[in-house]
Amino acid sequence: MLITVINPNTTESMTATIGRAAEAAAGPGTRVRAVTPAMGPVSIESHYDEALAVPGVLAEVTAGEELGTDGYVLACFGDPGLDAARELARGPVVGIAEAAMRTACYLGRGFSVVTTLGRTTGRAADLAEHYGVARFCRGIRACEIPVLELEDPASDARGVITEECRRAVAEDGADAIVLGCAGMAELCAHLSAAVGVPVVDGVAAATRTVETLVALGLRTGDRDEFASPPAKRYTGILAPFGAEC
Amino acid sequence: MLITVINPNTTESMTATIGRAAEAAAGPGTRVRAVTPAMGPVSIESHYDEALAVPGVLAEVTAGEELGTDGYVLACFGDPGLDAARELARGPVVGIAEAAMRTACYLGRGFSVVTTLGRTTGRAADLAEHYGVARFCRGIRACEIPVLELEDPASDARGVITEECRRAVAEDGADAIVLGCAGMAELCAHLSAAVGVPVVDGVAAATRTVETLVALGLRTGDRDEFASPPAKRYTGILAPFGAEC
Amino acid sequence: MLITVINPNTTESMTATIGRAAEAAAGPGTRVRAVTPAMGPVSIESHYDEALAVPGVLAEVTAGEELGTDGYVLACFGDPGLDAARELARGPVVGIAEAAMRTACYLGRGFSVVTTLGRTTGRAADLAEHYGVARFCRGIRACEIPVLELEDPASDARGVITEECRRAVAEDGADAIVLGCAGMAELCAHLSAAVGVPVVDGVAAATRTVETLVALGLRTGDRDEFASPPAKRYTGILAPFGAEC
Amino acid sequence: MLITVINPNTTESMTATIGRAAEAAAGPGTRVRAVTPAMGPVSIESHYDEALAVPGVLAEVTAGEELGTDGYVLACFGDPGLDAARELARGPVVGIAEAAMRTACYLGRGFSVVTTLGRTTGRAADLAEHYGVARFCRGIRACEIPVLELEDPASDARGVITEECRRAVAEDGADAIVLGCAGMAELCAHLSAAVGVPVVDGVAAATRTVETLVALGLRTGDRDEFASPPAKRYTGILAPFGAEC
Amino acid sequence: MLITVINPNTTESMTATIGRAAEAAAGPGTRVRAVTPAMGPVSIESHYDEALAVPGVLAEVTAGEELGTDGYVLACFGDPGLDAARELARGPVVGIAEAAMRTACYLGRGFSVVTTLGRTTGRAADLAEHYGVARFCRGIRACEIPVLELEDPASDARGVITEECRRAVAEDGADAIVLGCAGMAELCAHLSAAVGVPVVDGVAAATRTVETLVALGLRTGDRDEFASPPAKRYTGILAPFGAEC
Amino acid sequence: MLITVINPNTTESMTATIGRAAEAAAGPGTRVRAVTPAMGPVSIESHYDEALAVPGVLAEVTAGEELGTDGYVLACFGDPGLDAARELARGPVVGIAEAAMRTACYLGRGFSVVTTLGRTTGRAADLAEHYGVARFCRGIRACEIPVLELEDPASDARGVITEECRRAVAEDGADAIVLGCAGMAELCAHLSAAVGVPVVDGVAAATRTVETLVALGLRTGDRDEFASPPAKRYTGILAPFGAEC
Repeated sequence: MLITVINPNTTESMTATIGRAAEAAAGPGTRVRAVTPAMGPVSIESHYDEALAVPGVLAEVTAGEELGTDGYVLACFGDPGLDAARELARGPVVGIAEAAMRTACYLGRGFSVVTTLGRTTGRAADLAEHYGVARFCRGIRACEIPVLELEDPASDARGVITEECRRAVAEDGADAIVLGCAGMAELCAHLSAAVGVPVVDGVAAATRTVETLVALGLRTGDRDEFASPPAKRYTGILAPFGAEC
Repeated sequence: MLITVINPNTTESMTATIGRAAEAAAGPGTRVRAVTPAMGPVSIESHYDEALAVPGVLAEVTAGEELGTDGYVLACFGDPGLDAARELARGPVVGIAEAAMRTACYLGRGFSVVTTLGRTTGRAADLAEHYGVARFCRGIRACEIPVLELEDPASDARGVITEECRRAVAEDGADAIVLGCAGMAELCAHLSAAVGVPVVDGVAAATRTVETLVALGLRTGDRDEFASPPAKRYTGILAPFGAEC
Repeated sequence: MLITVINPNTTESMTATIGRAAEAAAGPGTRVRAVTPAMGPVSIESHYDEALAVPGVLAEVTAGEELGTDGYVLACFGDPGLDAARELARGPVVGIAEAAMRTACYLGRGFSVVTTLGRTTGRAADLAEHYGVARFCRGIRACEIPVLELEDPASDARGVITEECRRAVAEDGADAIVLGCAGMAELCAHLSAAVGVPVVDGVAAATRTVETLVALGLRTGDRDEFASPPAKRYTGILAPFGAEC
Repeated sequence: MLITVINPNTTESMTATIGRAAEAAAGPGTRVRAVTPAMGPVSIESHYDEALAVPGVLAEVTAGEELGTDGYVLACFGDPGLDAARELARGPVVGIAEAAMRTACYLGRGFSVVTTLGRTTGRAADLAEHYGVARFCRGIRACEIPVLELEDPASDARGVITEECRRAVAEDGADAIVLGCAGMAELCAHLSAAVGVPVVDGVAAATRTVETLVALGLRTGDRDEFASPPAKRYTGILAPFGAEC
Repeated sequence: MLITVINPNTTESMTATIGRAAEAAAGPGTRVRAVTPAMGPVSIESHYDEALAVPGVLAEVTAGEELGTDGYVLACFGDPGLDAARELARGPVVGIAEAAMRTACYLGRGFSVVTTLGRTTGRAADLAEHYGVARFCRGIRACEIPVLELEDPASDARGVITEECRRAVAEDGADAIVLGCAGMAELCAHLSAAVGVPVVDGVAAATRTVETLVALGLRTGDRDEFASPPAKRYTGILAPFGAEC
Repeated sequence: MLITVINPNTTESMTATIGRAAEAAAGPGTRVRAVTPAMGPVSIESHYDEALAVPGVLAEVTAGEELGTDGYVLACFGDPGLDAARELARGPVVGIAEAAMRTACYLGRGFSVVTTLGRTTGRAADLAEHYGVARFCRGIRACEIPVLELEDPASDARGVITEECRRAVAEDGADAIVLGCAGMAELCAHLSAAVGVPVVDGVAAATRTVETLVALGLRTGDRDEFASPPAKRYTGILAPFGAEC
């Protein structure tokens, strides 16, 4: 089975991190292809970044279809372009926020999200509402660490995030923690050990979820809403996204 | 006051229709500037189109800021790029779905949406939920008319839409109708007369809402979530959206 | 266009304050008529006051209809008599709580209400739920200032309210403030400047909303629920409200 | 124990019907006092009637307090003036819609309301939402019988209502029926036998609920929101409702 | 009327406490039969205990039917086996959590639950959601007192519970308190006096609610879902629960 | 990895069906152990059956722990004993209703459940609400086939279920179907082919979900609510479930 894991930002080192997390999670017989879009922001830290990450994501889905991808992971916690990607792909598409939050629901009565910047917590809250898990979400906590500093050893990201996870358990009464950024994937085992509750990394959760859907022959229902988009002309620099290209 | 009304698709004739509707709604002293993005789909009929309309919308907001725009209308019923536009604009930004649905709430206990294609009703339902008006939305009905045929006299769009509005009143018990596409703006008076209930066109509703917000000195709160997006590098054909251009 | 702004309590000086706020908000071509009911409580600070303000409000709507009123504002944050007024009036009727809370939804992810007495916060919460905005309401905060002291320079109302608005921003993370009493209308500009977030006065918001509805030809849908009430006999001191008078 | 049952309309024959239903429901040792307000509409069939029934209801609560009433029933399905009555009364106050709908929740998974006029179904839906039982309310059905015709043998009210109850069971899958008008109280046994599901009359349910609350020493919590209303001046024909009278 | 009050745990002294509370609440003419199951846990302090209390409860319902029971109270705050008991019983069945929480809704805008162990608060929250009262539930507070220590004078249960009730009023703004364990029934009057808000004991509330339902001729609707369970074979030690025994 | 799949009813042939479905779904390296409880009902078709299936399920979890089970599937669509099983097990426990409904959420905007008997649809609706997926559940449809007839070729179960799935797609607009009974597992591929939308069998979905959780090191959070139940004495035929045995 071929799973294409799309890092919606354009930072290759983060794609590498994400790819390692997906591979570690995948079962035998699954090939993970982690890709970086050819266009878009180097990190996603605002609604603006999130929106402009989508064209690159969709281009990767189109490319992935040509390569015979069986299913996709969208590896940014805002799940950018999820509905559109589902129209394009023959197989299933899963976002890491969706997968992480739904997976956390199996682990107890409530979870807290620990994420990077405070300005992204609104999007996380939106998604919790959208996916029907708001009632189980006990808190959304920001560490105020910019996304690309997660990889910087000088940032003490690990220490700050660990501390925020501890607070989520003590103050929110969270039974589980959801990591709110794909860039935190490699901290997952450390955090779980340090904090004593299950910690869900969305990249791993989404990769396994896609594997499950593909293994069970489940794809997006393609009647009406999620059928292939009607072919039409696009203009300007986005012309290549249209039917005439 | 200068209001920039952005038609998220790239069809000039629809921009003209939208511009006329906005001007007719605007009060004295308001200048309406209806614009067509330089990139994107010629019509919006799928999640894919909706997502790829956003870059063009955001480029128009950036351009509008340079021209001293006081407030923006996003004139597609999916409200594409609304949160991102709010980060960019100094003044208020209002989507036509948001304005139409909130306005309809003042007119009775429940409204129905009458829109173009069945495949877009999922997005309309999402937005009703997102804006907190799902409880007041009694139905979302599709006429199965492609967006660009709204302007084609041969399509009998007017007759089909009138009939669907009548059904919304009779079967859903709707107190008011919300038009689910900017391209229907000029049918509003006809429909209201024919069907006997108030009919809300989002372009008019959003234009007046922006006027109200600007007149009252109300802009998007810019603490944290809706502050200007952090400046950063963008790559590929989207590089012009980044800080270095 | 003639807008009748009804102060549901019977204190003339508050009617004057409300009238000034409505006039300041109204566009050119709109005539504002601020009225004081001939019966009822001098201020509204309990469910009892709220309920007993309604007859006076409805009498003013009946009188306003004879004068050719185009639309009404109910200028008390409990929106007393709103549904009944909608049955009586040909044009639209908007309450200030409804207008302020819906308007605040355009300004960010969440708002807090700052009001007078703690005992009125239950009604505000009820209305937030009723209007579908409870999810966006981050707090309802009381200053414990009786309504009529708002106009008393000795009460330090301005200072106390400013401080409570600051707390709403800092502790609730509110993107905007909604003023919870018509008597606070004239503090709006001061508060917005002092606190740094948009502050919504319901009198201004409702006045502009009524203008919008009238300008767009939108009135309450009058099928069934909001049709004119069936004519019938009333008894006792309320006999003048019946059909035989 | 003395229970004052207030018929919010001013039709004595309906007060008699209500009084009989309350007495039949009350346990031994309870004295039922059914009263007709000295002011207000002869029947309640609109938001206007509902709002203008409230002063008469509140005057009866004030009078009831002087007579040592232990608890009150508000015997109109719109529960008019409930919150205000709770401020005035030392003991509990229960509305018949509230009591009927909560009682029906003990009887199965869902109930339907069968009421008089279609224009009142909006209020019933509002109350179901307000009391938290909307999820259990499977339908609200109108018989289009004016309230005062319920007592007219020529109206065939019994037949029409029986038929609508049958439809509620067959089409809504209701486990129980809630009668949507105090004037239907005497039909309850007949309907239950005819339709084969439990039928809840709010007058009986509320009377027993008040008895329960009084017997258990439970009164409305009177901290803050439901404390006695602040004394103040009222004007015009409502002056008697103020503190100076 | 005969009401069977089932203590779902197997501790006789708690059955006695519960029986006294039920008798004190019952009206004249009601006979209370408090019973202890022949199988199950000595106290209920986990989901495991709750689940395994159910067979004993159901056996008591079956036995109660043979004795001509008119209605049942399930006297554990988790309402164990409620839906199944409703299938078995001809008359109504009411759980103490259900009755206490619904009763508290008549007493003000919001209540808090004060219970024994923190690990049971999840179940209480579930039930509040299930019964539609989550919006009115302001807090669920644990005293960390094991159930059987409630009866131990050395445990200072009374002092600890009183203090937690005080906090519920001060910090949650509760208008009323709901006791979260049948074993607290005898503290009810003391707590209400000490804390100054109404305190609802579920045993008393449920007993009166069953009386009301029986008196009004209301039983569980027995179409489909709550019809008698299909007769069938059971195996192993549960064989006596099957049709062949 | 060892997964214990518990058939909550005591019919061995259904355990065999369930075991085959779980094995077919499981990845390489997973050992599936399908077990039949030693006590309880031969099929689950009522709340009574559901409740009395729980002791057998919990005994199997206790036995499974001794055998080193890594995770559990509860293979009845009512998810009987789920919370209690989570207290007992070191690893994750997943119910088939939970897994099927959450999995269906990845496949489109809404799903319908197709199940056996109408009297079980209430439980399915409860679970949809409990798991936060009620908004995505477009219908719950019963085929009125008793559980054990699913295996009877003479029952035409396949034809009836296929037809009901078709109706769910046509009338509910379902993007996916969820099978409402473990006994339908082997029809899954047939139905999906016949109806043209993805069909989710909960046994397969839950088996893969448990695999995922175990593979990612995720177990139920065991702080407080889901910690091991306090050891205590049990009485009667349930004594073996207590600590002293």
